[in-house]
Amino acid sequence: MKAFSKGDFTLPGEAGYEALTLALAEKWGADVIRDSDGTQLSDALLGAGYGVYSTICIIRDHNAWAKQHSDRLQQTFLGTKPQIATEGTLTVSIMADFFGEQFSVNASDDAMRYWQVYDRTTNALVPSDLWQYHADAQTVTIKAIPFHSYTVSFLAWRIWEEISMYNHVTNNWTKEHVMQIDPVYPDTQAYLLAWLINWCEKNPDTTVVRFTSMFYNFVWIWGSNERCRHLFSDWASYDFTVSPKMMDLFRETYGYDITAEDFINGGNLHVTHMPPTPTKRKYMALVNDVTISFGKQLIDIVHHFGKQAYMFYDDSWVGTEPYNERFHELGFDGMIKCVFSGYEARLCAGVDVPVHELRLHPYLFPVGLGGAPTFMEGGDPTLEAKKFWNSIRRALLREPVDRIGLGGYLHLTQDFPDFCDYIEEVAIEFRRIKAMHAHGTPYTLPCRVAVLHTWGKLRSWTLSGHFHETNMFDLIHMNEALSGLPVDVRFLSFDDVKNGALDDVDVVINAGSAGSAWSGGEAWQDVALLETITKWVYHGGTLIGVNEPSAVQSSSQTLRMADVLGVDIDTGAKVAHGRWSFEVQSTDCFAEGAQFAAKENVMLTGADTAVLFKTGNMPVVTERQFGEGRGIYLSHFAISHANTRTLLNLLLRACGKPMQQQYLTDNATCECAWFPQSRSLVVINNDGQPQKTTIQTDGGAQTISLLPYETKIVEL
Amino acid sequence: MKAFSKGDFTLPGEAGYEALTLALAEKWGADVIRDSDGTQLSDALLGAGYGVYSTICIIRDHNAWAKQHSDRLQQTFLGTKPQIATEGTLTVSIMADFFGEQFSVNASDDAMRYWQVYDRTTNALVPSDLWQYHADAQTVTIKAIPFHSYTVSFLAWRIWEEISMYNHVTNNWTKEHVMQIDPVYPDTQAYLLAWLINWCEKNPDTTVVRFTSMFYNFVWIWGSNERCRHLFSDWASYDFTVSPKMMDLFRETYGYDITAEDFINGGNLHVTHMPPTPTKRKYMALVNDVTISFGKQLIDIVHHFGKQAYMFYDDSWVGTEPYNERFHELGFDGMIKCVFSGYEARLCAGVDVPVHELRLHPYLFPVGLGGAPTFMEGGDPTLEAKKFWNSIRRALLREPVDRIGLGGYLHLTQDFPDFCDYIEEVAIEFRRIKAMHAHGTPYTLPCRVAVLHTWGKLRSWTLSGHFHETNMFDLIHMNEALSGLPVDVRFLSFDDVKNGALDDVDVVINAGSAGSAWSGGEAWQDVALLETITKWVYHGGTLIGVNEPSAVQSSSQTLRMADVLGVDIDTGAKVAHGRWSFEVQSTDCFAEGAQFAAKENVMLTGADTAVLFKTGNMPVVTERQFGEGRGIYLSHFAISHANTRTLLNLLLRACGKPMQQQYLTDNATCECAWFPQSRSLVVINNDGQPQKTTIQTDGGAQTISLLPYETKIVEL
Repeated sequence: MKAFSKGDFTLPGEAGYEALTLALAEKWGADVIRDSDGTQLSDALLGAGYGVYSTICIIRDHNAWAKQHSDRLQQTFLGTKPQIATEGTLTVSIMADFFGEQFSVNASDDAMRYWQVYDRTTNALVPSDLWQYHADAQTVTIKAIPFHSYTVSFLAWRIWEEISMYNHVTNNWTKEHVMQIDPVYPDTQAYLLAWLINWCEKNPDTTVVRFTSMFYNFVWIWGSNERCRHLFSDWASYDFTVSPKMMDLFRETYGYDITAEDFINGGNLHVTHMPPTPTKRKYMALVNDVTISFGKQLIDIVHHFGKQAYMFYDDSWVGTEPYNERFHELGFDGMIKCVFSGYEARLCAGVDVPVHELRLHPYLFPVGLGGAPTFMEGGDPTLEAKKFWNSIRRALLREPVDRIGLGGYLHLTQDFPDFCDYIEEVAIEFRRIKAMHAHGTPYTLPCRVAVLHTWGKLRSWTLSGHFHETNMFDLIHMNEALSGLPVDVRFLSFDDVKNGALDDVDVVINAGSAGSAWSGGEAWQDVALLETITKWVYHGGTLIGVNEPSAVQSSSQTLRMADVLGVDIDTGAKVAHGRWSFEVQSTDCFAEGAQFAAKENVMLTGADTAVLFKTGNMPVVTERQFGEGRGIYLSHFAISHANTRTLLNLLLRACGKPMQQQYLTDNATCECAWFPQSRSLVVINNDGQPQKTTIQTDGGAQTISLLPYETKIVEL
Repeated sequence: MKAFSKGDFTLPGEAGYEALTLALAEKWGADVIRDSDGTQLSDALLGAGYGVYSTICIIRDHNAWAKQHSDRLQQTFLGTKPQIATEGTLTVSIMADFFGEQFSVNASDDAMRYWQVYDRTTNALVPSDLWQYHADAQTVTIKAIPFHSYTVSFLAWRIWEEISMYNHVTNNWTKEHVMQIDPVYPDTQAYLLAWLINWCEKNPDTTVVRFTSMFYNFVWIWGSNERCRHLFSDWASYDFTVSPKMMDLFRETYGYDITAEDFINGGNLHVTHMPPTPTKRKYMALVNDVTISFGKQLIDIVHHFGKQAYMFYDDSWVGTEPYNERFHELGFDGMIKCVFSGYEARLCAGVDVPVHELRLHPYLFPVGLGGAPTFMEGGDPTLEAKKFWNSIRRALLREPVDRIGLGGYLHLTQDFPDFCDYIEEVAIEFRRIKAMHAHGTPYTLPCRVAVLHTWGKLRSWTLSGHFHETNMFDLIHMNEALSGLPVDVRFLSFDDVKNGALDDVDVVINAGSAGSAWSGGEAWQDVALLETITKWVYHGGTLIGVNEPSAVQSSSQTLRMADVLGVDIDTGAKVAHGRWSFEVQSTDCFAEGAQFAAKENVMLTGADTAVLFKTGNMPVVTERQFGEGRGIYLSHFAISHANTRTLLNLLLRACGKPMQQQYLTDNATCECAWFPQSRSLVVINNDGQPQKTTIQTDGGAQTISLLPYETKIVEL
């Protein structure tokens, strides 16, 4: 047997293609066969000696029970958009803007207690004796002040499980709508426990139960009008966990009421990209407590049947957050994450569970993301696979996972032998990298980086959702760049900083627009935070600020760390202040082709701010010495080979190290990792063109030529 | 004598060029000869039978007295930039960043009472027993909290009159620095009154004393570093009016202290483009009261000597604001304004004085604005004159002034006979237009437009300074477009609106970025304002919002008028909200070539907002019907022939009128004015290319061909 040819690989089996399944299992070295949404495993496959993963979405596929218990469906708050009263009475059709197939008004007594009507002109709650709900017409009539705007916040049942709704609508399915039931109720819990016991009994061959994911879908509020079908979506917000029951629990737990407005938030709702209120944080903690204690019962059942329980880290992980302090209590044996990007590989690798597994792209589907052909005429799944592997490979060189695998319809690979060969290659490469990690950690530069934002460790690596969904944020580009750099990376909250977390950190990155969770918003009003970071920089730390770091409304400056960073941002009040002219100070930090988008209204604070890079006439990378440390400002950061290398160079500069280092490539399109225990140097080409690069090692210079996207492992 | 060949023209005379002066006076039909800065009038000119304007800058050219009374110089507050304490004591060199030739520290007991030290980290005033000024070193030593930032606000004498300083530095003059004395003190007043009496006695030929302008220069704080020489400049802010005496008067008048921080404002100072605080408004009123009561004494002296007093509306009008309610009390006989733009002509025309006079560009200087050649080799003063006249001519067709004139060195015209011919033509054209106005007002469309902003009428037409100094603001483009449109234009404050000023208004324009004086900032928190405008729209008014109209931080929407306008702006909280797709609704509003820059994060509020124009995929002009009225939103407005006509079309649409109207050109590069009493149709070509246009009149269609920038007057 070839070295590294077997194990740690999960294959999507397909009934009717048993021979293919077993042949590819052999070729790719699979040790596990899984079912997929829409595929079954036949007895022949189940009995072939492989581990078996079975997919369960625990809260759906219970329509019979759900119909008998329609008050056990999951819910959400909906808020109508502001409507102007033009006389003393205003009538609001509360469902007018929402997708009627997704939502149904919950006007039960239990729910009505939590409905709210707001005068949005005064932002005052309208007393409940001034409005009335008319169930027949689904309208609320309000005794209004003429020419004020009003909104109605109401509870609605979610009557169609969103992921299946999306697939149904997209693919014009006609089958029955799948509902989702809410495990907050004891009777739902009892039903689900019994159901799972039954399921385990009926599926003896299953070795791993893969939960997709747990209980509550990400927020995805659909509208009635096709011109704006998706009114709100957020992978990490908690709106879909709500119920009168949960709100009652909140009051019992914290001693005060949580209200509709705590969710509706003036119509903004609470996107993950903005800082949460203290009440939202408390609510999130409560939901995690509730779901962990029930989830643990489910996982105990799985274990009782001698099976393992893995979580698929995707659509419905809110309420059971893998980076929550209590997550390990659930007792999951593994975490599976589908990955497009390096930061997602690090996100998976960092979870506190025994086994970490990546589901690689492309999935074995005819069409891929955005509807482009993959496993069909016009598709090039091998090139796609190379590009995706290219994105995550550099992350896996820094932090290992335990397994990889695929999903979808295996038979689609039949026309793509190239793809089958490439996956074999990837699987071997993966196992080699894993083995090197097992032998000893890779060499890391003496540079400890902390990404500082509102969420801290809870939202390590990801902002919310995939790269293409959040690519308007500098931080996702930063995280993706960092995911494969040979530096130590951690994620800190502002409280962490105040509690001493900077003691063993060399560089802090704060990257985001004003008021966002990533910049930090009101957190920067905290004088203790300002003192801590300022002192830390003075004694040698480097603060890298991107876009509008530390921005908050204050009387004197937009950026609270402006005096350290040496730049500030004019929000209009300083339009008549002079701007400092500058010459660019030459450094060796900027890789050829590095580009930084200019930001309007960035102004140097004085003569002692050095401009390291300009775009047009705007300073885009600046530096200011402060004591032993420095502030570095970047107007924006977007990932590219050159920019990623430039970031590494800036980190080295921040740590007082020369740019020329052992175990770094001299070509920014290539990267490498040095495993000293294995004495293995892994060199990768991140580019679609052949590349050559030289690396200084303690065994002399190594010059390596690489094909597009190639990996070479050199034993020194 | 040719018709319209004589009168209403002020000629800059020049001693040594008496024959030229008299010849051009004849050619241009001058009735007045003036001196200029740097020119003298000889007895031959003074005695030639012309009116004589003499220029006085009343607060400078008194160096002998100023040296004897160095505590009577004008002052300002200066604020050091924030400096971080790295231990328990911080030493700040207070003059380090300021231009030592402009400022001298005022550490008198009288002044020290008003100095302030601020902890900018906490935004707390540092008690005066925790800091000390060391006069020898010009440092302030502060007992500091380590890693907090501190600023020092101190009073400084202004020891070099700024306009002369600018000319001196620019032209490398070597003569003695001119100082400026402060008329807030009784002894300064006594000195100036005596001086003016003496001056009037010695200048019997002067018919008009032209004050330049009155007492206090616009704010122009220079820095010590040539990389940022102009630290702050604002034509309309009041920093340079300050003195301990004025601050004492404030306390006596209003019963509370005004402080250094009321000026320094956290380092921002108070730019005119931002809303003033109530204290700033009170202070401005006080300064106007003080200067009007003293200014009136000066003007009385001028009148006593049988002369007239005109004000030159330029560098030093703060404190004697022509649009202040009390301005007429000064008793000025005329107002002279140098003009580049149409809005400046309207600004002059609208002042409550008997005579309005425009000083045309180009000035008779070798080089013009920005250092380009004018009256020298490489210059084309005739083309310059045509372009400037072109900008102001359309404004003069709407609102007349009484006189025009030139400034500078008359001998420079000798090599430019074309220019001399063109000015003759302009003078005749001006007199014809003036005569038509005298005969009866021009036809105006039934469209009453109010520009709504923080300053209202006080800052009619101008924002502060010239067009090129404020061209980053949408409103200056709006004002310039409006200055020549055949509609009624007024400027309202938010208080005006609440007091019923919309009763006879058809369209309100609110144009500015969030928080600016032009958008309005906190004024939009006022529920009464929101009610008034919303009701007014519902009953038929149109709100035109540009950029970030009515923007203020509130819980639900960025634009407080979003429900009326049908658009809102996402500041980050709505990044995960869906965006409405749209088709552009076809209208006949948009002149060919109309362009509107897109603004990021503009979102339609719902299906009932019509997009009238898009740029890329962004809506840039939208409309929403509300009751009998509508909201129209423009992402930006920049002046151009096509955009100006489009604005007129939108105004017509707002007033429910068809685009096809009598007395409008069918070619957006041309405009016309119809004087029904004179039965004269004035048609102008605003373009550098020949144009043809047809105008529907009650006497049938008139088709007119025009040379570049030509004016034609057709008698019907």
